[in-house]
Amino acid sequence: MKSSRPRHKEVRPEFQVRPRLYRGADIAIGPGKADLLEAVHRAGSIAAAAEAMGMSYMRAWMLIRTMNGCFKAPLVQTKRGGSKRGAAILTETGRTVLALYRRIETRSLKATQADQKQLSEQLR
Amino acid sequence: MKSSRPRHKEVRPEFQVRPRLYRGADIAIGPGKADLLEAVHRAGSIAAAAEAMGMSYMRAWMLIRTMNGCFKAPLVQTKRGGSKRGAAILTETGRTVLALYRRIETRSLKATQADQKQLSEQLR
Repeated sequence: MKSSRPRHKEVRPEFQVRPRLYRGADIAIGPGKADLLEAVHRAGSIAAAAEAMGMSYMRAWMLIRTMNGCFKAPLVQTKRGGSKRGAAILTETGRTVLALYRRIETRSLKATQADQKQLSEQLR
Repeated sequence: MKSSRPRHKEVRPEFQVRPRLYRGADIAIGPGKADLLEAVHRAGSIAAAAEAMGMSYMRAWMLIRTMNGCFKAPLVQTKRGGSKRGAAILTETGRTVLALYRRIETRSLKATQADQKQLSEQLR
């Protein structure tokens, strides 16, 4: 049996870029909404995505409503009846937007590696 | 006299990257803290910086305390007495960290212009 070590405080530096796109006063997409899109894609419903992210169904629904209203086509489509009642999927626009968002994160991180290193070196 | 036009809702897309560096559970620096550093540099005191940013002195002070604790040297130095009582300046570490942070923002934006354009084109 492994001996239990006291948990130490995690002090490893972690760097994120958190892109945010506004449409007027609305945040059309940002890190939380992107994660929610991904969770819907994985979980197949808004309820399951909300649960996976530890947020209320109402909050997930409102975030999706905002996203759907900001883009030229809805990003998430729900089934209201039939055997797939309650199911939700990403539309083609939803998949495109999520892929672009992730690419922006990746490219931003890649383009700034030297600066991130210098910044982290300033941490104690 | 100019005729008053009804104000229309602003729908122009605006894209930001909002870098965030953690040290353990603390956000060592992010967009709000970077703006606060800049405001201290401009205003010359925490009180004036807080006022310029529309935040309470206490909140500004706590954000600075967190930053100062995360980096190997304080980013903001205050004067507690003498004729400059209440004055605050960025230290050399403070100026270095702020410059690196702004450079990361600039380089991230520059590296992702094509993706940003494609993303914005998905907006309605």
